[in-house]
Amino acid sequence: MDTFFNPRSVAVIGASNSPFNLGATICRCMNEYSKWDGTVYAVNRKGEDVFGCKGCRAVTDIEGDVDLAVIITPAGVVPDFVEQCAAKGIRRIIIESSGFSEGGEEGRALQRRIDETAREHGLRIMGPNCLGVLNAANGFSCFYGVQPDNHHEFLGSESGSVSFIIQSGGIVVIVLESFLMDVVKANKIVSIGNKSDIDEADMLKYFEQDDSTQVVAMYLENIKQGRKFIETARKMKKPVLVFKVGRTSEGARAAMSHTAGMANNDAVFDMACRQAGVIRVNAISELHSLPKMFTHMPPLKGRRIAVFTNSGAFGGITADLIVESGLEMAVFPEETKERLRSTAKLFNVSNPVDLGPTLGKQTFIDIWDAILSSDTVDGLLAVPNVWMKVVVEAICELGEICKKYDKPAAIYIPNAIERILAIRTEFNLPVFESPEEATRALTVSYEHYRALGKKAGEPLPV
Amino acid sequence: MDTFFNPRSVAVIGASNSPFNLGATICRCMNEYSKWDGTVYAVNRKGEDVFGCKGCRAVTDIEGDVDLAVIITPAGVVPDFVEQCAAKGIRRIIIESSGFSEGGEEGRALQRRIDETAREHGLRIMGPNCLGVLNAANGFSCFYGVQPDNHHEFLGSESGSVSFIIQSGGIVVIVLESFLMDVVKANKIVSIGNKSDIDEADMLKYFEQDDSTQVVAMYLENIKQGRKFIETARKMKKPVLVFKVGRTSEGARAAMSHTAGMANNDAVFDMACRQAGVIRVNAISELHSLPKMFTHMPPLKGRRIAVFTNSGAFGGITADLIVESGLEMAVFPEETKERLRSTAKLFNVSNPVDLGPTLGKQTFIDIWDAILSSDTVDGLLAVPNVWMKVVVEAICELGEICKKYDKPAAIYIPNAIERILAIRTEFNLPVFESPEEATRALTVSYEHYRALGKKAGEPLPV
Repeated sequence: MDTFFNPRSVAVIGASNSPFNLGATICRCMNEYSKWDGTVYAVNRKGEDVFGCKGCRAVTDIEGDVDLAVIITPAGVVPDFVEQCAAKGIRRIIIESSGFSEGGEEGRALQRRIDETAREHGLRIMGPNCLGVLNAANGFSCFYGVQPDNHHEFLGSESGSVSFIIQSGGIVVIVLESFLMDVVKANKIVSIGNKSDIDEADMLKYFEQDDSTQVVAMYLENIKQGRKFIETARKMKKPVLVFKVGRTSEGARAAMSHTAGMANNDAVFDMACRQAGVIRVNAISELHSLPKMFTHMPPLKGRRIAVFTNSGAFGGITADLIVESGLEMAVFPEETKERLRSTAKLFNVSNPVDLGPTLGKQTFIDIWDAILSSDTVDGLLAVPNVWMKVVVEAICELGEICKKYDKPAAIYIPNAIERILAIRTEFNLPVFESPEEATRALTVSYEHYRALGKKAGEPLPV
Repeated sequence: MDTFFNPRSVAVIGASNSPFNLGATICRCMNEYSKWDGTVYAVNRKGEDVFGCKGCRAVTDIEGDVDLAVIITPAGVVPDFVEQCAAKGIRRIIIESSGFSEGGEEGRALQRRIDETAREHGLRIMGPNCLGVLNAANGFSCFYGVQPDNHHEFLGSESGSVSFIIQSGGIVVIVLESFLMDVVKANKIVSIGNKSDIDEADMLKYFEQDDSTQVVAMYLENIKQGRKFIETARKMKKPVLVFKVGRTSEGARAAMSHTAGMANNDAVFDMACRQAGVIRVNAISELHSLPKMFTHMPPLKGRRIAVFTNSGAFGGITADLIVESGLEMAVFPEETKERLRSTAKLFNVSNPVDLGPTLGKQTFIDIWDAILSSDTVDGLLAVPNVWMKVVVEAICELGEICKKYDKPAAIYIPNAIERILAIRTEFNLPVFESPEEATRALTVSYEHYRALGKKAGEPLPV
C-alpha cells in the first residue's frame, strides 16, 4: 500500500496535450511544481510528451519499471488499459475516470471486466471515480485539476500528522483549505471513490501502521463491507473520526447517485462505530477542527472539567455546553480554592474560575497550575480574552502545564478571530473557533480514551 | 426610549484625566472620533475638562440641558449621583458601574437607594453593570474602553438593520466583530446588565416600533419578569432571536454570579418562547449569522426544500441536514424535471439537482428559475461551487429570481471561504459559512413565518 503514496515511477494514462485534458494537469503537477522527483510517463494515442513527461502510445511501450498507473480516460477504454497495466507488470492502479457502478448497467459491465483482470493478476485498484492520493510529506499527488498556486499553498508548507480517507473529491479541497491556518496539517489524503477494490478498511489498516499518521479522519457515503470495517476499526489504537452521509433515507438516496454506494442503515452504522471505538462527527468541519486535540494535548481521562475565563459571560455559556455534552463541571476542594485565592483577586474561585482585569502573565500561569494540579479536575476549558499581550504570552505556557499534569486544555479565545487563528500556528496550541467546538474537542478526547481502555480490556474510567 | 439612542447632550459622571479612567474613554469617543455631534459634559471631583468635554464638579453645576447621564464611578457614590441627576432634571440614566445586586448585601443596599430615587422622580435607568447603548446610525455610543481603530471599524461603515439586546459586555464585541464582513450589520446595540429598571421587554417594545430595526437578536442570562417578556414578545411582528445562558443548572449558577439574575427554569422559558414566537438559537454565532436570512430573503412559507449543487457530495450532505432539521426534500413533478432536462446535461434532475461542469451563466439561472417556479418547492438550498467566475455572476442574479417567486434561497459556497465572504457583501447576498448554517437559516425563516401566522390567527401552513 505504501507504494501508492511513495512511487518512484508513474504512468498517467490518458494524459495528452489536448485542451482541457485532465491527465495533463496531473503530469504538470508531478513534473513541474511538485517536490516529488520520481519519473512520469504520459500514455496517449499520439505517444506525445506532456509537460516534459515522456509520451508512449501504450503502457507496454514504456521502457522502465512503473510502480503505479493513474488512469484518467473515458470509462469505455479503462478495462483495456487495466489489461495493458497487468501485461506491463504494474500492480497498483488508480482509476480516476467516472462512469462505472454509478453510471447504470453499461458502467457496471465495464466494472466487472476490470474486477476480473484485477483478480486474475493480483492488481490493487483505487477508485474508480476518485482523485487518488496526495502525500504532503513527499509532495506526491495525482489529484487532477490542481493549479500551481494551490499546490504550493497546500503542499509547499510542512506536512502534518492527520490522514484522511475521503470518498468525494469535492470534500478534499475543503479539508485542504481548512488546514492553511491550523496548528495541525494533513499528512496523507486518499480519495477512494467507488471502492471497487481498496476500501476504507484497507486504508485504516495502512494508516494504523503508518508512522507519520497520528489521527485518521474519514468522509464516507457508504460502507461496503460492514464486518471488515468494524473488525479493522476495532484494532485501531489511533483516533478515527468519521463523518457519514446518509443518516436519513433522503441523504442516503442522494449519496447513492454520487458514488454508487448502497444505502446503509444508519442505526446499525452508529452501533458499529460505538463497538469499534470510532468517533462519529457531526459536521465536515469537525474532520479538520478536532484532530488537533489529539495531536497537541494529552487525552482527557475523566469527565470533570474546570472552566477558566476572564470574560464573565463565558462561564455560563461553557458550563451549559459542558453539561449538555455529557461532561461535568469539576467541584474544587477547599485546598484548590485557597490556592486560587492566593494568586489574584478573582471574581469567582469556584468553577467556572472568573478572573478580572489582571496585568501579570504569572497570575494566569499560577491559576492554571492550581486548577490542573487539583485531583478533582480531569481537564480544562480555557476561554481567555486576549485584550493584553501578556495573556497571549501566558497561553503559550499552558501547553507545558498540561504536559506536567498529563491533562488536556481546549482553548477558545473570544473576539479578533483572524488574529487569534494566526496565534495558534505560531504558538503551536489547539485554539478552537467557538466555545461549542472547544467543548466538543474535550468530548471526543474522552470518548477515544474510553474506547482505548475498552479495547485493552481495562476497567472503564468513572 | 429613543433619547437613549439619540441624545443631544450627555453628562459622563466619573470621567476624569486620571490614568486608566474609563469615563475618559467615553468622553474621548463621543467628542473626538464619533460622527455624533451632541454636547458632552465631564463630571469629576476637580471639575476638569476631559478630552475637550467641559468639566463640572457636580451634575447640578452643568448650565445647559442634559438629555442623558452616563455614570461610571465606584458603586458607593452612584446613588448620590442619581440624586444629583434627579435634581438637575435628567430623566435618563445609564449606570455602567458594577458592584450592585451581583456584589452581595452591600451592593443590594446601594441598588435599593437608586430604585427609590428613580421611583420618586420617574427616572428611567439602564444597568447597572452594563455598557449602555451603541447606535450605528448616528455614531452615538457610551461603551467604555473603545479604541479609535475599533470605533472606526465598527461605526465608520454604514449601519445595518439588526438590533441587539445583550446582557453581557463581552458578547457585544463578538457581535460587532462578526459583522465586519457580513451583508447585514448592526443598527443598535444595548447592553442592559443587571436590568434594575429597563429590561429586555422594554427594549423589545422599542425595537418593534423602531423603523430602522428589522430583526432583534438577544443574548440573555435570565428573564426578570417572565409574563411581561412573553406578552411583549407575543406582540412582535419582527423576528426575535434569543440565545439564553442557563439551560443547565450549572450554567444558570455561573450566570448568576455574572449579572445577578435568578436562575430560570429552562423548560418554562422554552415553552414561553414557543408561545411568543421567539426563535431560540443554539449558539452565540447564530445571533449574527442568521439575521441576514430575514433581511435579504422572502420568508420560507412551507417545508419543501429543493437542493441545487454542482459539487456532488453536497447533495447527500444537505439532504441529511434538511430532513434532520424538520424540513422536507421537495419532490419535483415531471414538468419541473422536463424543464431541468432542457437546461443542460444534469447529473440528476430529481432533488438534489446536481449540475456537472458548465460554462454558461444562463444555465444556472435557468435551473434556479425552473426550481423556484415549481409549485412543489417552497425554498432553495443552493450549494454552488464557484470554480468559474460565471458562477459568481449567476449567483448575483439568484436574489432577483427569489423575489420573482417570493421564495427564499440560502446559499453555501464550499471552499475559498475568505474570498466568498467578501463576495457576500459585494453582491448583497445571504451567503452562509457552512451547510449546517444555511439549513438552519431556512428553518428559522419558516419558524418565524409560522409564528406570525399563528399570531394573526391564520390557519397554519401545512
